[in-house]
Amino acid sequence: MEQRPSDLDSIFKPQSVAVVGASDNPGKLGFHVMKSLVQGGYPGVVFPINPGKNEILGLKAYPSLSHVPQTVDLAIIVLPADLVPRTLEGCHERGIRGIVLITAGFKEIEDQKGERLQQDITEIANRFGMKIIGPNTFGVVNLHLPLNASFTPEFSQVKKGKVGLVSQSGGMSHLLGFLSIESHVGMSKIIGLGNRCNVDFAEMVAYLSEDPETEVIAMYIEGIDEPRGLVEVAKRSCLKKPLVAFKAGRSLTSDKASQFHTGSLAGKHEIYAGAFRQAGILMVESSEELLDASKALAMCPLPQGTGVAVLSGQAGPGMVASDLCEGEGMTLPPFSTAIQRRIDELLPPIAIRTNPIDMGPAWYDSAAIGGIVDAVCEDPAIHAIVLCIMFASANRSAVGTLAQLLRKKKIDKPILSCFSAPGTTWEEEIRLLEGTGIPNFATPERAAKALANLIRYHRLRERRKAYGNP
Amino acid sequence: MEQRPSDLDSIFKPQSVAVVGASDNPGKLGFHVMKSLVQGGYPGVVFPINPGKNEILGLKAYPSLSHVPQTVDLAIIVLPADLVPRTLEGCHERGIRGIVLITAGFKEIEDQKGERLQQDITEIANRFGMKIIGPNTFGVVNLHLPLNASFTPEFSQVKKGKVGLVSQSGGMSHLLGFLSIESHVGMSKIIGLGNRCNVDFAEMVAYLSEDPETEVIAMYIEGIDEPRGLVEVAKRSCLKKPLVAFKAGRSLTSDKASQFHTGSLAGKHEIYAGAFRQAGILMVESSEELLDASKALAMCPLPQGTGVAVLSGQAGPGMVASDLCEGEGMTLPPFSTAIQRRIDELLPPIAIRTNPIDMGPAWYDSAAIGGIVDAVCEDPAIHAIVLCIMFASANRSAVGTLAQLLRKKKIDKPILSCFSAPGTTWEEEIRLLEGTGIPNFATPERAAKALANLIRYHRLRERRKAYGNP
Repeated sequence: MEQRPSDLDSIFKPQSVAVVGASDNPGKLGFHVMKSLVQGGYPGVVFPINPGKNEILGLKAYPSLSHVPQTVDLAIIVLPADLVPRTLEGCHERGIRGIVLITAGFKEIEDQKGERLQQDITEIANRFGMKIIGPNTFGVVNLHLPLNASFTPEFSQVKKGKVGLVSQSGGMSHLLGFLSIESHVGMSKIIGLGNRCNVDFAEMVAYLSEDPETEVIAMYIEGIDEPRGLVEVAKRSCLKKPLVAFKAGRSLTSDKASQFHTGSLAGKHEIYAGAFRQAGILMVESSEELLDASKALAMCPLPQGTGVAVLSGQAGPGMVASDLCEGEGMTLPPFSTAIQRRIDELLPPIAIRTNPIDMGPAWYDSAAIGGIVDAVCEDPAIHAIVLCIMFASANRSAVGTLAQLLRKKKIDKPILSCFSAPGTTWEEEIRLLEGTGIPNFATPERAAKALANLIRYHRLRERRKAYGNP
Repeated sequence: MEQRPSDLDSIFKPQSVAVVGASDNPGKLGFHVMKSLVQGGYPGVVFPINPGKNEILGLKAYPSLSHVPQTVDLAIIVLPADLVPRTLEGCHERGIRGIVLITAGFKEIEDQKGERLQQDITEIANRFGMKIIGPNTFGVVNLHLPLNASFTPEFSQVKKGKVGLVSQSGGMSHLLGFLSIESHVGMSKIIGLGNRCNVDFAEMVAYLSEDPETEVIAMYIEGIDEPRGLVEVAKRSCLKKPLVAFKAGRSLTSDKASQFHTGSLAGKHEIYAGAFRQAGILMVESSEELLDASKALAMCPLPQGTGVAVLSGQAGPGMVASDLCEGEGMTLPPFSTAIQRRIDELLPPIAIRTNPIDMGPAWYDSAAIGGIVDAVCEDPAIHAIVLCIMFASANRSAVGTLAQLLRKKKIDKPILSCFSAPGTTWEEEIRLLEGTGIPNFATPERAAKALANLIRYHRLRERRKAYGNP
């Protein structure tokens, strides 16, 4: 199967977009799509198509695609299902090859009509060399252009970054998008595949693996008709960029629901797990873990071993992180003599100065904490650091100063943190810290688990490298 | 061992508080303690004690406890460790029986002096019939008085509620406090036990089990010298109120760290797990799970079986919730014929109308969703509901209307929700929903997991009831 990324560029990097079914009625999806484009700051030209309107959201509207005076790269379609085949033909007449088909009522409905209609449009698209994202999708978002080609303007609040999210479920894309706003996971693209009439996971992964704006590919998967396609693409792609997948449908009930939902059986979980492992896809077990692992993979160098130093401003969170690290197969080795000596000079004797370090008595002293991080990074037995500091009024300024310090260092080992404070108290400090390449997580457990996933991915990739190219 | 809760009332419900070591220097903990009391809205009288000051934070300061013109119920001590024994004697002379001893430098330090000092103060406290929370604690908070007797004024931001948190680690108390602000877990008390010189978990659980403001007791535990005391108290208390524990120190390394940290070996995890199960204590595996389970236990009736209905505004999150429910041993039974008929009338045929229900096509229609919740609640095979709705611009108003609807119903089965929206978009709606007794969680998985913990607790309690009173 030849991959032609250039087709998909018309969807993700269009110079002009037509919204077929644009509306100024807030009760219609065609209104929200217009809002997403306009408020999301899309820099290209937008053509609302609606035979009954002269203007929508301040933009001149056209009665049909044939009236549009310019070339159109991408058509977003929000018309009733019955009108879609004819509309696709209209798109072809205008030379449009990129389609985002938001309309539902295809393979996912009980009525056989839906399945037939989906066959029809797939056949039309394939005949004309069109790529359709959907049907039955919320749309796609390219945060780098920016292009919000979805019915949810709020996706534009997601931070621009390196994680490309490909999802089979609109609902889960929304959840993951909202969570990523909160936990500051930067996204490159958010793609709702919907019923996947002629663009499936395999093609999206191939595209994103060549996309310079994407460094990690995150997937939410329910069921795939031909998993082999994804497996083959992944075997190559995983050597370039980490692939992470959260697979739903492991229970019988949700397997059944999947068939209704986007028209595919979820299939046996174990078969997917085995195939994904072989393909170098890192499988995770929850939506939070998908985002945490993707964030770590996008920000950190890979650890070259399993030796971890836990440095904590308070002993409790350090214990909790250590528990999780050891439970995930990492070790907390003692520091080498020379490194231990440096730490002993930085920390008073009442601190716990061995691994896991309780930096408590030095928590006002960012220079000491920075010095400890430095020393520990140089220890050959240490391959990664988990750094936890809980806010207290008395240590308010420590994190900002620490971030300033770390900024100046060249750190080649992954450092994952849990800096926790009420509300937005440390917002700025944490952004500064993340700017130095240290991803922050909501709890010590989640920081440690994200590190475990860095190690798992590293192993998967090494094994794939050993197999050679497929 | 006789429990005398009345002693602890002087700590949690004092009419007057002295801060021994009060300061107006923001570099000192004695400053932050004063700020906590004053800004936290403590309604009683505060006496700052500092021989060098006439006034601290606008309050008249006294050179020593003996100069205070009134009775003092609670003394918060933030002096250097060496001065603590004499200060305790001064407290006794003023008839003070409640002490929060923030000072560190006791059993937790390497120097043998610390251990001896802790023996001394324990002996003094026991001789004079004093109760000491600490030493080496951040303090205690009673959100109902309110009293913030800690060095962290930000604890006053935690919502007043029903969960009493008892923690062996100050760092973990801070983490759990900050997380509870974010996830709206209402707390009654937050208690940092520190080195537990003469108040340990057993006594705190006995006290909280009689506390009318506390309905769930949540614990973060590292290691207990005499777990039997807690086990015996828990056997009685768990029949009155749910007890939930997150136990750290399961790995060898963190076990060692625990000994340093608060002077106790963490001990074998399996031994704790067995003892806790026998005592009716629900054991959880992470800080987020501790809060999620406590929130559900504080808000929901207990499910009388394992039959769950998953109702979702979008199919994906419903599948993810179903996976977790079935993985945790719940079932998603088909609805009875009569109930199914009612649902069929409310939902269009293109929706998935069997369990798990995809309410998608009715997501603008709060009356339909409310009707489905109603119908499903009446199905005898259904013991609990997981309800998931992801925000989209087009369904913005649905949740508010739904909450208004549910407010008027009498619901006697647990309903747990994941309503997710960007930032604070649904803040008000979710508070309204939680006001109806439906706790909201960040992800479908966490809602389903909290339900699993309701079921686990119900079983634990039934088993304890069957054993009879100890």
